[in-house]
Amino acid sequence: MVSVSSPSTSLFEQVRASRHAARQLAILSAETRAQALEQIALGLEAHADAILEANQQDRQRAAPWVEQGHLSAAAYARLKLDEAKLATMISSVRGVQSLPDLVGQAQWIRELDEGLILERRTCPLGVLGVIFESRPDALTQIASLALKTGNGVLMKGGSEALYSCQQLTQVIHTALSRIPGFPVASIQLLTTREEIRELLALEEAIDLIIPRGSKSFVQFIQANTSIPVLGHADGICHLYVDQHADLTMAVNLTIDAKVTYPSACNAIETLLVHEQIAPQFLPQVAQALQDQGVELRGCDRSRQWAEMEPATETDWATEYGDLILSIQVVEDLEAAIHHIQTFGSRHTEAIVTADPEVAETFLTQVDAAGVFHNASTRFADGYRYGFGAEVGISTQTLPPRGPVGIEGLVTYRYQLRGQGQRVSDYAGPRARSFTHRDLSYGSADLSS
Amino acid sequence: MVSVSSPSTSLFEQVRASRHAARQLAILSAETRAQALEQIALGLEAHADAILEANQQDRQRAAPWVEQGHLSAAAYARLKLDEAKLATMISSVRGVQSLPDLVGQAQWIRELDEGLILERRTCPLGVLGVIFESRPDALTQIASLALKTGNGVLMKGGSEALYSCQQLTQVIHTALSRIPGFPVASIQLLTTREEIRELLALEEAIDLIIPRGSKSFVQFIQANTSIPVLGHADGICHLYVDQHADLTMAVNLTIDAKVTYPSACNAIETLLVHEQIAPQFLPQVAQALQDQGVELRGCDRSRQWAEMEPATETDWATEYGDLILSIQVVEDLEAAIHHIQTFGSRHTEAIVTADPEVAETFLTQVDAAGVFHNASTRFADGYRYGFGAEVGISTQTLPPRGPVGIEGLVTYRYQLRGQGQRVSDYAGPRARSFTHRDLSYGSADLSS
Repeated sequence: MVSVSSPSTSLFEQVRASRHAARQLAILSAETRAQALEQIALGLEAHADAILEANQQDRQRAAPWVEQGHLSAAAYARLKLDEAKLATMISSVRGVQSLPDLVGQAQWIRELDEGLILERRTCPLGVLGVIFESRPDALTQIASLALKTGNGVLMKGGSEALYSCQQLTQVIHTALSRIPGFPVASIQLLTTREEIRELLALEEAIDLIIPRGSKSFVQFIQANTSIPVLGHADGICHLYVDQHADLTMAVNLTIDAKVTYPSACNAIETLLVHEQIAPQFLPQVAQALQDQGVELRGCDRSRQWAEMEPATETDWATEYGDLILSIQVVEDLEAAIHHIQTFGSRHTEAIVTADPEVAETFLTQVDAAGVFHNASTRFADGYRYGFGAEVGISTQTLPPRGPVGIEGLVTYRYQLRGQGQRVSDYAGPRARSFTHRDLSYGSADLSS
Repeated sequence: MVSVSSPSTSLFEQVRASRHAARQLAILSAETRAQALEQIALGLEAHADAILEANQQDRQRAAPWVEQGHLSAAAYARLKLDEAKLATMISSVRGVQSLPDLVGQAQWIRELDEGLILERRTCPLGVLGVIFESRPDALTQIASLALKTGNGVLMKGGSEALYSCQQLTQVIHTALSRIPGFPVASIQLLTTREEIRELLALEEAIDLIIPRGSKSFVQFIQANTSIPVLGHADGICHLYVDQHADLTMAVNLTIDAKVTYPSACNAIETLLVHEQIAPQFLPQVAQALQDQGVELRGCDRSRQWAEMEPATETDWATEYGDLILSIQVVEDLEAAIHHIQTFGSRHTEAIVTADPEVAETFLTQVDAAGVFHNASTRFADGYRYGFGAEVGISTQTLPPRGPVGIEGLVTYRYQLRGQGQRVSDYAGPRARSFTHRDLSYGSADLSS
């Protein structure tokens, strides 16, 4: 836990303003929130020049940092905004606008007794704390997701993107102030690094932290706050090739799951191969992987069938995030599952097999957010799942789990409407009975 | 965070056995799990004498602890089992058995593309850690809830109930072993106090901690683990009497919410009264409360209308858990909501008013798990909500929130079934498109 002095006055004021504004935001109509998103899209269009200029300033300021080793070349590249990227940002704001509205929906309505009606109704979480690295486009995406779901948000971008973030926030504030009475303060930008630690300690005021950045960054956040964190540190995913696998499919899925985006959390790190199929499969897959520049590290038995470096215990527990793959030959399905439960990070696990029974055992027994049969692990993604937007991917066991859409940004409350009922009426010799009659069920779409 | 040495071998073995057994439990049919609960009920009936005798031993052992001040008289009273209580325990096991089965249900099914089908399907959490005080009946309730939802469970009861807990666990193990191949080790009893701290550090092995006991006990648990905890420490609930309230209803609800069970977390601690109605309401309600032996502590304006001790700032933030009530006169609805947001614990908040518009503003703007109109806060309870069983009450913002039924003991995973699909097929110039067509929605009843 971080030890922090009391938050700076400015942060304290910002958080208070954000909470107050969020309460007003929560009761706006879906139409007004949609209008706010359209105003933001229009504002971004109207102020494109100022935004690109601010970004140009950021890049000039940050260029020496790359030479000095303070900023990676990849992060510097991600910092860049141009007209095409800005157009994508704007269309993504309109994309969020077109998602279903999740605020104030009745999940179910139940009569507890005559004239005593209980409703479970969705509502915003309150205030989000979002901390991201480099990409200025994260800011508009986060702000629009927060507005869509009626949440206030405190955003902290990477210091390399300072001018871009300030300019974008100003454009958003101006756009929102065009709507009479709109609680503009619900969106706040933090600009100093110290504020991150202070933010992480504000468990009374922040309802959810969403970190967007590298693995070590997410781990730092998780280790330093008792506020719930939506995210994941590890993505150690496996592909298990069963003895009854179609070999061509198995090779194709291995390549797709490893090579298309090796630093993605849903890329595989280890290939598990049934011993019966290893002699045919391993030479083929090793060749295909090596053709794609993938470095292989195998167990002793794997190395009988293809040339590769020996793997150590550390390899099984490593998320390479790179064109490296470890390979383990296993005796059977049980051994594959055991390996996955020992070293996996409960993210996404896949099996290739033509045997439906083996597939079902795998899909039922493997404890992970995603369990896939004859499909690439890389489908584990909010957009591919059809959520329209992805707020994060969670490897926690409790919901929300796996790729999380905007449903992860709302919660529910129970509303009970009565006519003066007391619990004492339901006790004692002349006790009334509850009827517990469901009046409506499942009208709220929380799946997307 | 607790600093712990590595867990003792015995605990480590128990946790491992429980996780392994839980994986087997998770794939049993609903029928087998129901059969297991029936066997437990039969076992408790058959071994009633041994159970009551073990409980008698506990009470003999603990009696001097009351005199020595190590155990409260109330806790000693709760320790006692007799035939009537045992009968209730047995019928409660059968009650859990009759709840809907929540394991392996499809929450929704979506076609991502032809032959690529995504299902969100419920599954057990894994292994629960449940720590409770005194009541031996907690053990059978917890064990049956865990079995019902396919979870393994490590249970630690109060040391005063040691013999009762050991005897009950033995009866449960014997009962379960009557079912061929049943993973009996999914239910484990811990017996030493040191094991609590060790348990709290096992974040890789325990998926959810459920503490059952006093407020300070729950706070200790929450402060000493990074495993998710289902529970709440505080229950500072308010009743706000609006200027348009029916006075008789307001008096009745105040009495019900304060007096029927003052130590319950859903009892009120503060009464908020609109200034326009204070002159008529306060003398009546003060008289009624004082007739029931309730001590009143009021703000200066309250004390104009009824005799009571002055309240201090501390009172507004105190959960008395006793026949004490603080009273604050407020200017209007906005001031009432402000007081609640400042001092409430987001548990349950109620308003009495005949004005539907004021009621809706309260129900929409107050951020708490339960917001009630013209009903006692004491309805905030899993049984009264119709959940059949209550696993705990959560004052967190994220779901599950408020009273939590067995739905709090399951999560979901995504199952994707394909025919060799790769994400690379969905990118580039000849990219396939996703269909994202919902095939089925909302068949799983997660509401009870």
